[in-house]
Amino acid sequence: MIKVGIVGATGYAGAELVKILSVHPDAEIVFLGSRGYAGEAFSRVYGNMYEIVDLACIDDGDSSFMADLSKKADVIFTATPQGVCAGLVNDDILSNTKIIDLSADFRIKDVDVYEKWYGIKHAAPQYIKEAVYGLCEINRDAIKDTRIIANPGCYTTCSILTAYPMVKAGLIDTDTLIVDAKSGTSGAGRGAKTQNLFCEVNENIKAYGVTNHRHTPEIEEQLGYACGHEVVINFTPHLVPMNRGILVTEYATLIKHSDGSLPTQEEVMNIYKEAYDKEKFVRVLPAGTNPETRWVEGSNYTDIGFKIDERTGRIIMMGALDNIVKGAAGQAVQNMNIMFGLAEDTGLDMPPVFP
Amino acid sequence: MIKVGIVGATGYAGAELVKILSVHPDAEIVFLGSRGYAGEAFSRVYGNMYEIVDLACIDDGDSSFMADLSKKADVIFTATPQGVCAGLVNDDILSNTKIIDLSADFRIKDVDVYEKWYGIKHAAPQYIKEAVYGLCEINRDAIKDTRIIANPGCYTTCSILTAYPMVKAGLIDTDTLIVDAKSGTSGAGRGAKTQNLFCEVNENIKAYGVTNHRHTPEIEEQLGYACGHEVVINFTPHLVPMNRGILVTEYATLIKHSDGSLPTQEEVMNIYKEAYDKEKFVRVLPAGTNPETRWVEGSNYTDIGFKIDERTGRIIMMGALDNIVKGAAGQAVQNMNIMFGLAEDTGLDMPPVFP
Amino acid sequence: MIKVGIVGATGYAGAELVKILSVHPDAEIVFLGSRGYAGEAFSRVYGNMYEIVDLACIDDGDSSFMADLSKKADVIFTATPQGVCAGLVNDDILSNTKIIDLSADFRIKDVDVYEKWYGIKHAAPQYIKEAVYGLCEINRDAIKDTRIIANPGCYTTCSILTAYPMVKAGLIDTDTLIVDAKSGTSGAGRGAKTQNLFCEVNENIKAYGVTNHRHTPEIEEQLGYACGHEVVINFTPHLVPMNRGILVTEYATLIKHSDGSLPTQEEVMNIYKEAYDKEKFVRVLPAGTNPETRWVEGSNYTDIGFKIDERTGRIIMMGALDNIVKGAAGQAVQNMNIMFGLAEDTGLDMPPVFP
Amino acid sequence: MIKVGIVGATGYAGAELVKILSVHPDAEIVFLGSRGYAGEAFSRVYGNMYEIVDLACIDDGDSSFMADLSKKADVIFTATPQGVCAGLVNDDILSNTKIIDLSADFRIKDVDVYEKWYGIKHAAPQYIKEAVYGLCEINRDAIKDTRIIANPGCYTTCSILTAYPMVKAGLIDTDTLIVDAKSGTSGAGRGAKTQNLFCEVNENIKAYGVTNHRHTPEIEEQLGYACGHEVVINFTPHLVPMNRGILVTEYATLIKHSDGSLPTQEEVMNIYKEAYDKEKFVRVLPAGTNPETRWVEGSNYTDIGFKIDERTGRIIMMGALDNIVKGAAGQAVQNMNIMFGLAEDTGLDMPPVFP
Repeated sequence: MIKVGIVGATGYAGAELVKILSVHPDAEIVFLGSRGYAGEAFSRVYGNMYEIVDLACIDDGDSSFMADLSKKADVIFTATPQGVCAGLVNDDILSNTKIIDLSADFRIKDVDVYEKWYGIKHAAPQYIKEAVYGLCEINRDAIKDTRIIANPGCYTTCSILTAYPMVKAGLIDTDTLIVDAKSGTSGAGRGAKTQNLFCEVNENIKAYGVTNHRHTPEIEEQLGYACGHEVVINFTPHLVPMNRGILVTEYATLIKHSDGSLPTQEEVMNIYKEAYDKEKFVRVLPAGTNPETRWVEGSNYTDIGFKIDERTGRIIMMGALDNIVKGAAGQAVQNMNIMFGLAEDTGLDMPPVFP
Repeated sequence: MIKVGIVGATGYAGAELVKILSVHPDAEIVFLGSRGYAGEAFSRVYGNMYEIVDLACIDDGDSSFMADLSKKADVIFTATPQGVCAGLVNDDILSNTKIIDLSADFRIKDVDVYEKWYGIKHAAPQYIKEAVYGLCEINRDAIKDTRIIANPGCYTTCSILTAYPMVKAGLIDTDTLIVDAKSGTSGAGRGAKTQNLFCEVNENIKAYGVTNHRHTPEIEEQLGYACGHEVVINFTPHLVPMNRGILVTEYATLIKHSDGSLPTQEEVMNIYKEAYDKEKFVRVLPAGTNPETRWVEGSNYTDIGFKIDERTGRIIMMGALDNIVKGAAGQAVQNMNIMFGLAEDTGLDMPPVFP
Repeated sequence: MIKVGIVGATGYAGAELVKILSVHPDAEIVFLGSRGYAGEAFSRVYGNMYEIVDLACIDDGDSSFMADLSKKADVIFTATPQGVCAGLVNDDILSNTKIIDLSADFRIKDVDVYEKWYGIKHAAPQYIKEAVYGLCEINRDAIKDTRIIANPGCYTTCSILTAYPMVKAGLIDTDTLIVDAKSGTSGAGRGAKTQNLFCEVNENIKAYGVTNHRHTPEIEEQLGYACGHEVVINFTPHLVPMNRGILVTEYATLIKHSDGSLPTQEEVMNIYKEAYDKEKFVRVLPAGTNPETRWVEGSNYTDIGFKIDERTGRIIMMGALDNIVKGAAGQAVQNMNIMFGLAEDTGLDMPPVFP
Repeated sequence: MIKVGIVGATGYAGAELVKILSVHPDAEIVFLGSRGYAGEAFSRVYGNMYEIVDLACIDDGDSSFMADLSKKADVIFTATPQGVCAGLVNDDILSNTKIIDLSADFRIKDVDVYEKWYGIKHAAPQYIKEAVYGLCEINRDAIKDTRIIANPGCYTTCSILTAYPMVKAGLIDTDTLIVDAKSGTSGAGRGAKTQNLFCEVNENIKAYGVTNHRHTPEIEEQLGYACGHEVVINFTPHLVPMNRGILVTEYATLIKHSDGSLPTQEEVMNIYKEAYDKEKFVRVLPAGTNPETRWVEGSNYTDIGFKIDERTGRIIMMGALDNIVKGAAGQAVQNMNIMFGLAEDTGLDMPPVFP
């Protein structure tokens, strides 16, 4: 049994970790940390877990719990605000346990870029290089051997997986890449903010973070690795009145063949099939089928589809995932499975819930 | 491996059976029947099951498939409109296989009552007596030995489980029992009806079937067995703008003790605890906690709470479940598990999904 | 032009007052008070009013503004938490202006009952007797001549109007009256609370305030006036995932005629028609039609229907209204119209918005 | 009083026309046509209009009613499927009455383009030239004098108004223009289709009509008039789980000044202000404010905002409107007001409804 600690267990991503790990056959939760609900039974905060999880929340508001926890837990998930995880790790901790961080602290290799987009000073830059960007389908081998996983963002996972094969194959002009993303409201977290009240979100759609959302550099960096040169994109997130789900609609100009012809639907399908045919959690949809968030809700799948527009010479690539599962807790558990040598889908064999 | 056939697999309850059974460790789906989608891959109809279920739908529009299916399948689930299952069963079929019927055909013991409330002639009344009402927590022993399960209705399961201990203990005046029920829209099925369009249901709540909803006699009959005399109630269902979930709010006058005092909160809690403490899928909530559908969504749990009103001498009993799981497919699988001697929660260990 | 001040303008009820009054032909808004948004343009808080209302919010956090405002405004609406309005009024204020209070401060005639249910000391009990309960259809004449209107609560307006004719006619046993109410989420206000976040309310229904919701004594008092004796009821509100709308489902045992027969559907329809036929804002629906919140959303209408159940001897009465309009701001403007001798529907001629 | 006939009155756009015109001070509805509900009281189909509109629906399934109607009505609105209006008009009709067509029949000047994108033969191409594209803010003068208005599509109105000033000013490269649009579900109409059921739409977002939605050529044609050359764009609509509202997010590369600098936020704001400052129904939002559909719901407003991205050299333009009002019925009434010499906002002075 892998002993697991969860720091920040009472946010939506933390609670999804609890839900998944409570029925994971090879994991046992030994610690649930929370700042706002310290001392309360977890199942009083998340009534769905009543009679399923019996632990009480432990105060994780300062770092004092970490030394002890690192001795008890084989792996610690940190589902915490930016900056918290970087403030918790040190050599002692890392010699005892593994860290899977669901925040952005170790995602961006260039610490200046991190500090600029996030507006905070990085507390542990010495571990950035060691940390592996935990996009399982892309970095599986490196994940096996690391002590620190930087678990990717929700928008990022969806945006990258959707474009990755085309960027890597050099079939699109990355200077033209535009990512128009739509997210359910759980991505905004469980903090009590007026803007996230039911009546403010329901019957509404809006863009936010236009030109400056923090997931932008993360997408750019990873796609840059795929093609070997700098990538600069427009990324525009939107808030949609639903609980879960992210849909990305990505536009890019196709690079023509030397004879002036566009890549065909079949050529592109082959590119995608080659990239993902062996991947359980990425489903390339049949030609003509667009991804929909309802078909992945509650699961660890990412669905991908695309369409070539001969009129404009562009491809429209679309991807859908559940922001709390593949976009957060599910991928974190997938990373754990890889790190501990388990079958990658252990505890993640949850078909999407519909309706 | 239990070989399973599902008739009416493309309705919402049928599709939930497919979802649950696709990851059930002891079951294998061998047949998916559909009238409207015969010949299509199931995963084209329910995109969530893409790359998970590979079967195509077989036409189940007339009964000709049943003889063959009964030889291949150890159990057949019929998730079909009223009257269909009664038209499919006969001695040959029942000598080969077991039937778990999610419709009302075998739920009501008095065939006259069935024919009056449903307005159709019963095609196989000779099997009504043999059929067991598959409310697992109440009829577990009888379920083990039968060939035909009448799987309870969604409103019914919730209404009965919520009131059962009090009715059985004789602590409420059943002549005063009123059940005000609220359901998500999946209970209305997947038929293309104007009244169930998104724009008609969203931002709306309404009562329907006032005084004459078909689940009324089913509730009355089962509660009558509990107390040993006839029960006549008001049952009023309402349509709520959400996908899944049923909440019942039940009102009844408490029967006073001989000294004129009302039963206390503690006494009543003991009644409920005694009834359900050993039941995994019924959770009696702590005093002061009201059930909410979000805490059971996607799971096989029923949550129950109550409150005594000293001003009026009434008890308000409340129950919540997922109408497609404990109210249909989940309870059907629970019945299958009991019939085949499996642990009752096999394949049903799905914590509720939130948010 | 009637000069109007709105205290508490940035809550949902206050904002609806602003919306209605901004196009009212005989009113002019001269003051918008707010505690949380003092100094901000109102249209920055409520973007719908951009280029429609140009006023900035004035701090109404203490009572110092009232003396001045009472000289400028012919009427002041207070859309404030309990206790605020009682702390603002005095003889000087009331000699200058009229008050329409949307809180509960002057609704309940018995100050002990008020203080018990609301848990606060009443700051101005000397005005309770003078205040008129502003349920326009019932108290129209008294409204014309008063200085203080206690504008009814949302649940209350719906609950009372639905049962009133039957209670007054003595056709139901008020000891058996049960009100099961369902409300959209705007009734919970615009405060930033976790429990009202989109993800917590969406896909959920729950009861709250079971046996002790504060609108209970208000309903009981007003229905008591109708029948001339004390009324004690069960009132159970539920939270529904929609923005606006209240539906009440009311159960009561019919009082039989001396020959033992139940009142008929026609008799009861006549009672309702007689009560409401001349009322523009109460629509008695045709026999067999149940009220739905979608048909009143955005309007000042209350829709009422009913059904007699011969099996149980009960009547099920149902009513629907928009909690922010007829349940708050719309009725407040209707009261203003009556007080100032305008046609009662002035500025309220807004057909319900659907879908 | 302008006498008004509405053909196709029982669709969502038709019903909104009924709602608006029922309280329009200068209009009187004399005819409500419907195919599916002929003979029924309109208020049985749309319960919101109970006691407000007393007319019954007349069968408009073939064209026989038109000759008579054209003599009674000063203007006829056709809220009908593609091809219907073209089959109804002729010289006699047009000599008697004016036509405001909410379908696409007269929107596209090139009949070949119409027939290619819509897949039907145009029944009355002789009137295409005469018909005026009723985008009020752009074509106001021509609207005054025509007999036939081609009322713009919902996506189209929003897409064009949002980009128009920049296209006309020559400040963006139209070859790079991408329109990513999101719509509420009322845009899909009231037809009983499985894909539009509540449970299919709720908790879901998807793209549809990718590269081939019929509003594409309409946008291209009108923007082409603005800049004087052919425009070819990508237009991708998405279905959002809400009743009303369209949001467009438009991307285009800015054309640099001769000194290599990008147009500034201020320059662009001036362009927009100049275009729309006198337009009541187009609100250019303050810098930094993004449009949201909730702020226009139920009203005839279009809200517009934009952001310049110096990193990519693109502008992101955003627009929001209510698809049934400014995107259909509201603009149709605005056109009627212009045609009949009324103040343009007569009967349209409805502030947006929130929440």
